[in-house]
Amino acid sequence: MVVELISVGTELLLGNIVNTNTQFLAEKCALLGLSMYHQAVVGDNKERLSEVIRTALKRSDVIILTGGLGPTEDDLTKEVCAEVMGFPLVEDAHTRERIEQYFKNGIYKEIPENNWKQAIIPAGAIVLDNDNGMAPGLILEKYGKSAVLLPGPPSELYPLFMNQVYPYLQNLQPELIRSQMIKVCGMGESQVETKLLDLIDKQTNPTIATYAKTGEVHIRVTAKAADEDAAKELLKPVVKEIRSRLGDYVYSTKEKETLETAVVRLLQKYELTVTTAESCTGGLVAGRLVNVPGASEVFNEGFITYSNKAKRKRLDVSKSTLRKYGAVSEETAREMAAGGVFASDSDTCVAVTGIAGPEGGTEDKPVGLVYIATYMKDKVSVEHYQFKGNRAKVREQAVVKALDLLRRSILDNYR
Amino acid sequence: MVVELISVGTELLLGNIVNTNTQFLAEKCALLGLSMYHQAVVGDNKERLSEVIRTALKRSDVIILTGGLGPTEDDLTKEVCAEVMGFPLVEDAHTRERIEQYFKNGIYKEIPENNWKQAIIPAGAIVLDNDNGMAPGLILEKYGKSAVLLPGPPSELYPLFMNQVYPYLQNLQPELIRSQMIKVCGMGESQVETKLLDLIDKQTNPTIATYAKTGEVHIRVTAKAADEDAAKELLKPVVKEIRSRLGDYVYSTKEKETLETAVVRLLQKYELTVTTAESCTGGLVAGRLVNVPGASEVFNEGFITYSNKAKRKRLDVSKSTLRKYGAVSEETAREMAAGGVFASDSDTCVAVTGIAGPEGGTEDKPVGLVYIATYMKDKVSVEHYQFKGNRAKVREQAVVKALDLLRRSILDNYR
Repeated sequence: MVVELISVGTELLLGNIVNTNTQFLAEKCALLGLSMYHQAVVGDNKERLSEVIRTALKRSDVIILTGGLGPTEDDLTKEVCAEVMGFPLVEDAHTRERIEQYFKNGIYKEIPENNWKQAIIPAGAIVLDNDNGMAPGLILEKYGKSAVLLPGPPSELYPLFMNQVYPYLQNLQPELIRSQMIKVCGMGESQVETKLLDLIDKQTNPTIATYAKTGEVHIRVTAKAADEDAAKELLKPVVKEIRSRLGDYVYSTKEKETLETAVVRLLQKYELTVTTAESCTGGLVAGRLVNVPGASEVFNEGFITYSNKAKRKRLDVSKSTLRKYGAVSEETAREMAAGGVFASDSDTCVAVTGIAGPEGGTEDKPVGLVYIATYMKDKVSVEHYQFKGNRAKVREQAVVKALDLLRRSILDNYR
Repeated sequence: MVVELISVGTELLLGNIVNTNTQFLAEKCALLGLSMYHQAVVGDNKERLSEVIRTALKRSDVIILTGGLGPTEDDLTKEVCAEVMGFPLVEDAHTRERIEQYFKNGIYKEIPENNWKQAIIPAGAIVLDNDNGMAPGLILEKYGKSAVLLPGPPSELYPLFMNQVYPYLQNLQPELIRSQMIKVCGMGESQVETKLLDLIDKQTNPTIATYAKTGEVHIRVTAKAADEDAAKELLKPVVKEIRSRLGDYVYSTKEKETLETAVVRLLQKYELTVTTAESCTGGLVAGRLVNVPGASEVFNEGFITYSNKAKRKRLDVSKSTLRKYGAVSEETAREMAAGGVFASDSDTCVAVTGIAGPEGGTEDKPVGLVYIATYMKDKVSVEHYQFKGNRAKVREQAVVKALDLLRRSILDNYR
């Protein structure tokens, strides 16, 4: 069963709004195990909309159109779709009644003339009552194809889809889809693929797909099966094999667990507190940790020591270290991490010092050079990186690496 | 000149991510005065991708493809586009060198074999160097049509597009479009619209469009003209009128000036230093200030005082204040701001304390309640807000408000 999405609206072509409806519908269709090969956006224009609907009906079994069901003259979706599929338009008494009802207790005394347009429907269409607006949803069925027409505003679309269209689609689809996420940090996308190449090459069911995020790779394993248990059976050995090949590079197998959540969970597990000592990242590592609800259990305070004076005063970095090696050096990172632990009375610390640019780079210490130190069990480990990109990009990568080093240091020292 | 967007990526068809690239590109194309009638999304599949490219080249002058330029086997955009347009593939020495360079000082020792794929380009294509990733952008020109191929990650796409594709498209377009940005903070979109209603209603050239961002409204005034001077003449009176109506709510009229840049510029102008004292925002206010190159002139250090103990120790918030009024209170915010100034010997301070949720709210102090204090010239001012949304959303709004209060306090006290 192949489904295709068509978003109708000039505001999308002008870039006035982000198309979040498409993501919502695509995710739900994937969950239902429907295949999707195309999504299209087209404006409120009769000829172009006809053409897009015709093309979609040729290549897909179900087309879902969103937008263009409003009362104004440039709302054309219903009219054009009915014409393409050969449905005459008639007034629907039930919908007319709902419109009257809608206005009865509403803020407007008179019903604007153009609202009656919304009671006109393709003859024989399934009408989906809209409890959050006036345009009903519609399903047109012909020659084994279905066209589902839904209003564009998310507040109307989401409940209409979940309550009435989702069960309709479920009935069309015998198979079920389940997927499992594997989140990786510390390895590039091509490295991950190299390690999984034979698995990826022979994939059919489940399938394996990789996605690169800043400093992370997400792997999605997806199985199709007759029921929940069969899907789980298909996923299990593949997920296990991938985990064993990638080892500690895997930080989570939960869809919604972020890197900082994984770090906070580990700190909670081993009953550790952490502090942050940041220079070039200026508070962003702490900011990520505090994203996690309940971070207060493991995080009491953080240090943003941007100037040398602050590094000395807050973290007791020695004057001679700063003079001899500079603020961006292994030695300074080391003293920052140790200083953070002592100043805050925390169990562990992650410290970051680097050159984010665009100024401040030298031949020896170019822009993008970042030292990250972790303090665990009276020992400090330091790593350094040469990040690429602009100031924001360098800092963003440093934050991810700092969180990942913290995570792996905890595993190395406490597991 | 008609342009069409094609996003390539199975993750879009599966609804794993929201397609923000399309909104970005559509907005920029509209700015350039280019017409757009279609946008398409297609997966990493050779036959379907070929078909979509062929259709797009028939009906549009320029097609912009994003995604599918990575090193892995399922990245096909370049190969398929070259085949459809009849370009042979060759190795590009310049790009090969850039890949070598990229790995040379990088974190990975060996260059994975599949990365060399990214040095293969359609013979005769214009190569657009990518400073934030390995896949170069490409422009293929044939029969008066152009295909622009860009990497999918926004951090690579955005700078590549703005620096290299935008001027390319500008050259294709005979009429010149100039626009002027006006950035507003502290006022909602509908409030801004109400103040400008008569201007918006009578707009033809220049046009006025408003865009809502988190805590901000951006107003773009756009003029079409034969030359630069004529465009400027059209923009000038409208921009002046808008500025005078919105007063200090306008924080910048520069395209690339962010709220934090405006704050740092003001601090520099009045030769002030600032410190941050953050609880619920956990370092994100400082993180925003440090986004600005040269922030070290005005920012020496910041305090992340998440626990009560840290508030007492670092900022000298009194035990009785914490006990009597709680950590989230006007009184605590006030003492945090004053304490930050004295502890760091800075001229000014912004302090934030609030309940980000999801836990910790009470009837008196619900989730979303945030106090923000600014210290200027021996005086502390405190404002409180009741933000809507989840933990991330509450914190994000608090950060914007903190920066804006800081900006307006400087204007009120030093201008």
